Amino acid sequence: MIVIFSFHLHDNSHAPLYQQLYAQLRDQIRSGSLPYGSRLPSVRALQAHFNISKTPIETAYQMLVAEGYAVSRPRSGLFVLNELQPLLREDVLLTEEAESRMSNIRSGTQSNPLRHADRNPLPPVQPSQIVDFRASRVDASAFPLRLWRRSVQEALEQHALELGAYGDPQGEYAFRATIADYLRQSRGVQCGPDQIVIGSGIRYAASLLVKLLHNVDTLACEDPGFAPFPDYFRRSGKQVIALPAEQIAAQIRQSDAGAVYITPSHQFPTGSVLSYGDRERMLQWAYSRNAYIIEDDYDGEFRYSGKPIPSLQSLDRSGRVIYIGTFSKAFSPALRMNYIVLPQELVSRMRSERLPLDAPSRIDQWAMTRFIEQGHWFRHIRRIRGLYGKKHDRLLARIQEYFGDHAAVTGHSAGLHIQVTVRTNASSRELIRLAAEAGVAVYDDSNMLVGSDSIGANDAPVIYLGFAGLMEKQIDDGIRLLREAWAGILDE
Amino acid sequence: MIVIFSFHLHDNSHAPLYQQLYAQLRDQIRSGSLPYGSRLPSVRALQAHFNISKTPIETAYQMLVAEGYAVSRPRSGLFVLNELQPLLREDVLLTEEAESRMSNIRSGTQSNPLRHADRNPLPPVQPSQIVDFRASRVDASAFPLRLWRRSVQEALEQHALELGAYGDPQGEYAFRATIADYLRQSRGVQCGPDQIVIGSGIRYAASLLVKLLHNVDTLACEDPGFAPFPDYFRRSGKQVIALPAEQIAAQIRQSDAGAVYITPSHQFPTGSVLSYGDRERMLQWAYSRNAYIIEDDYDGEFRYSGKPIPSLQSLDRSGRVIYIGTFSKAFSPALRMNYIVLPQELVSRMRSERLPLDAPSRIDQWAMTRFIEQGHWFRHIRRIRGLYGKKHDRLLARIQEYFGDHAAVTGHSAGLHIQVTVRTNASSRELIRLAAEAGVAVYDDSNMLVGSDSIGANDAPVIYLGFAGLMEKQIDDGIRLLREAWAGILDE
Repeated sequence: MIVIFSFHLHDNSHAPLYQQLYAQLRDQIRSGSLPYGSRLPSVRALQAHFNISKTPIETAYQMLVAEGYAVSRPRSGLFVLNELQPLLREDVLLTEEAESRMSNIRSGTQSNPLRHADRNPLPPVQPSQIVDFRASRVDASAFPLRLWRRSVQEALEQHALELGAYGDPQGEYAFRATIADYLRQSRGVQCGPDQIVIGSGIRYAASLLVKLLHNVDTLACEDPGFAPFPDYFRRSGKQVIALPAEQIAAQIRQSDAGAVYITPSHQFPTGSVLSYGDRERMLQWAYSRNAYIIEDDYDGEFRYSGKPIPSLQSLDRSGRVIYIGTFSKAFSPALRMNYIVLPQELVSRMRSERLPLDAPSRIDQWAMTRFIEQGHWFRHIRRIRGLYGKKHDRLLARIQEYFGDHAAVTGHSAGLHIQVTVRTNASSRELIRLAAEAGVAVYDDSNMLVGSDSIGANDAPVIYLGFAGLMEKQIDDGIRLLREAWAGILDE
Repeated sequence: MIVIFSFHLHDNSHAPLYQQLYAQLRDQIRSGSLPYGSRLPSVRALQAHFNISKTPIETAYQMLVAEGYAVSRPRSGLFVLNELQPLLREDVLLTEEAESRMSNIRSGTQSNPLRHADRNPLPPVQPSQIVDFRASRVDASAFPLRLWRRSVQEALEQHALELGAYGDPQGEYAFRATIADYLRQSRGVQCGPDQIVIGSGIRYAASLLVKLLHNVDTLACEDPGFAPFPDYFRRSGKQVIALPAEQIAAQIRQSDAGAVYITPSHQFPTGSVLSYGDRERMLQWAYSRNAYIIEDDYDGEFRYSGKPIPSLQSLDRSGRVIYIGTFSKAFSPALRMNYIVLPQELVSRMRSERLPLDAPSRIDQWAMTRFIEQGHWFRHIRRIRGLYGKKHDRLLARIQEYFGDHAAVTGHSAGLHIQVTVRTNASSRELIRLAAEAGVAVYDDSNMLVGSDSIGANDAPVIYLGFAGLMEKQIDDGIRLLREAWAGILDE
C-alpha cells in the first residue's frame, strides 16, 4: 500500500509542533487520505525530515494511539485505524456523495473516538492484507492521465481569452451540446443543450431540484436506497417516504408522493433492474399525477452481459423524467462533475424563477468537451468497461469457488458492485466484524436509508461488494480471507 | 474583438439545420459567449464550414434579427446585440456570481425580446468601439497559463493514485492548510485548516451559511450592496433588511438582525472602507448579541495606495466573524473556487449536524496547492496588483482629463472598480442609455439591492466603472466616448 504523506510544520504557527503534527495526522486519518492499515513514518524518519527533536513526534503519536486513530505493533511501527471504526458502527455502502456524507458523519462522531475503541476491541492489523470492497472507489490506474492533461492544456490555449470572465452558470453551451449528443447515443436520452445543467455532484442536483420542485411536498424513494438525495430533501423540510425497492412501481400509486427518486438501470444497492412493465407503470403514475420521476443513472455506462438498458428518460413521452448522470464512475470522482437533464417545463421554471446556478470550473468543462469531441471518451469507456467486466467476472468466479452454495450473488452483470446473500444465522454486522478482523472491509445496508427496517432479523444477511477500485489479486485475496473469516458461522 | 464560435450541427438531430443554428447562436448570445458587438460569421463562411446550402443560415440569421439578438449593417454583416438590452433595463454591477444571476435574469426575461426591442430603439452599433466597464471581468491575458498548466500536470502525477476516490468534502486538507497560511500572511486572518471550507462560489457559501445559521431569522446587509448573497437568504425564507452602507455600524444596533453580510475592505459597490471605529462597533454589536458578521473580502488583495487594510476577521476576539474569500478576482473567475473561514463554534455545528458539503475538483485543489506552495501565487498577486494599479491610475487620470469637475471619483485606491458621481440633472438610466449608444457599457446600482430607493431622485447620478478586464487603450477610448456621449447633459 503506497501512502502519500504531506505535512506542513510552521515555526511561526501559534500551535506547538506536537499539536500541529497530531492535528494534521488526525485530519488525514479522518478524511481517509491516510487509509486504513497504512503505516505511519517512523519517528526517526520524521525527525530527519523536519530536523526536529523526537519528543514532539512521539507525543503526537501517543495522542493518536490514545484516541484510537492508530495502533502500535511492536517492531513494526504505527498503523492507521480509521476505516475500521465507522465500519463497525455506522458504515454505509458508499457511492457518489454518500462518501462525502460519511466523512461528515465520521468527523462528527469521532469527537470521542475512545468510546468506540473501548466498545470494540481492536482487531489485529494486517496491513498487507487490507482489502476494501467499498463501492464508491474506481480504478485510479485506469484514469487517462496523459490524454486528460493534454485536454486541459488545449482547453487553456483555446479559451485563453475567456479566462477573465464568468461562464454560463448553467454550464458551457458547447459542453452541454456535447453531453446531449453523448446521452442520445449511449443512453437514449432525448434532450437539447438547453435542458442540461452542469453540476458538481448529487448535493448540487438535490439543492437545485428542491427549489424547482417547490410544489412537491412528498418525495418517495427506494428502500434500501441511496440516502444523500432524499436526505437533502428531508433537511429542506420535505416529507420523504421510503418504499420497498422491488415493489416501488406498485406502491407509488397508493402514496401521495409528488416525485420519486429511483435508480432503475441498476438499483442502488440491490443491483436489480426495473422491468419494462414497471417502467411503464412508473411513467403512467407520473402522467396521471403530474408527478416527476428523478432517474439517477449513476453507473448506466456499465453493463457486462445482455442488451444495454436504455434510460427511463428515453421512454418518457410527456416530460416527467428528470435524468441525473455523473462523471464520477466512468471518469473520476476527483473531478466533481455531473449533470442534470430537465424536462422543458422545469427549464422554463428555472428561468422564470431565476434560480441561482453555479457550474463547476470552466476549464474542466472545456477540457471535457475536447476529451469527448476527440473521441477519447468513447475509447475510455470501452476500455474501462472491459477492465471492470474482468474484475466483475473474477469476483463472481471467486465467490463461486470459495463459497459455493453458501452465498448467492444478485444485482450483478452491471454497475460496479454486487449484492451477496450469505447463508448463515449470523447478522450482517457480525459478518462485517469478522471480515474487519481479517483485514477485509465489506458493507451492509445499515445507514443506507431511513426506514430500512424492512429486512427482518430472520432473513439471511446481505453484504455489498464493490470491485472497481480493487486489483484482481486483491479480489482473490479478499474473497479467500472472507471465506476463512466466516468459516465458523456458515450454515451447514 | 476576437470571437470564438463553436457550432455543432447534427444530421441525426430531430431539429432542422436552421433551427439548430438559430438556437445555438441565440444561446451563445444570451449567455454572453458571443459578446455585444461581435460580428457573426458571414453566410458564405458558414456555408463553406458546414458544407450546407445558404438557406438555413439565412433563415437562422433572419430569426435572430427579428428577435432583436442581432442587427444587420449593410456591407458589414450581422452584429450581436446581447448586452445592450439588459443594460438599458435591468443591469447590475456584476461581480462574483451576480453575473450568474444576471444570466438567469436575461434568459428569463428575453423570452420575449421583441418587446424590449420595440421599447428601446436600437442604437447604432460600432463594434470597433465597444468598451465594457463591467466590474466582474478580470484581465485574461494576466492568467499564468504556463505555470497553471504545469501545476495541473504535476498535481495529476503526484496524486495519480488518488484519482479513483472521493476527497474530503470540506476540501483537501493540504489545500486548506496552505490557504490558512496565505490568509494569515496576507490578510491577517487567524484560522486553522479545520475552519476552512473550500467551495465553488458565493452561492455555495450562501447555501452553507443558511443551514449553519438556522437560528438566525434576520440577515442585515448593505444598501447599496451585492445582491446574490442576501437574495439566497431571502429565497430560503429568511428576513433580509438592507441598511444604508455608510451607516450600517450605527443602525445595526437598532435592528433585530442575527447576522450581517458586509464588504468592509472595499464596500461593494461604493468602494468605501469601513473605518476602524465602525469595525469595533460592528464587533461589539456581534459580541453583545451573539450575532455573526459575514465578511466578504472579494477583492481584498488589491490596494493601490496607503497601508493594506487587515480583515475584520483579524480583529475578532470572540469567533463572531465568518470570512469569505475567492480566487475569482486574483486568479480567474473560470476556476469557480472560493473558501469560507468559519469560527470554531460553527465548525462544531457543521460537524455535529453532518451538513452535506461538496468541494470542487480535487485536481484543481491539488494544482492550486502546488501553485501557492511553489511561490507562484505571491509572484502572481504582486504582478497583477501592479497591472491593475496602472489601469486604475490610468482610469482616474482620464476621468480627470476629460471630465474635470463634472465628475467626482470615490471608492478608488482599492479593488477593481470605482464609483463616479456625474454632475448632471440626467438620471443614471439616461447616462447608461447615452453611453450605450456610443458603444460604451457602464452600470449603475439599479437591481443591486432590494431596498435601493435610498438614493433620491434629486441626487447626482452614480455610475460604476470596472477596469480590470480592459486594456489601457480601451480605458482611454471609453472615457473619451463617455465625455462625447454626455456632452449635452453635463451641468455648466
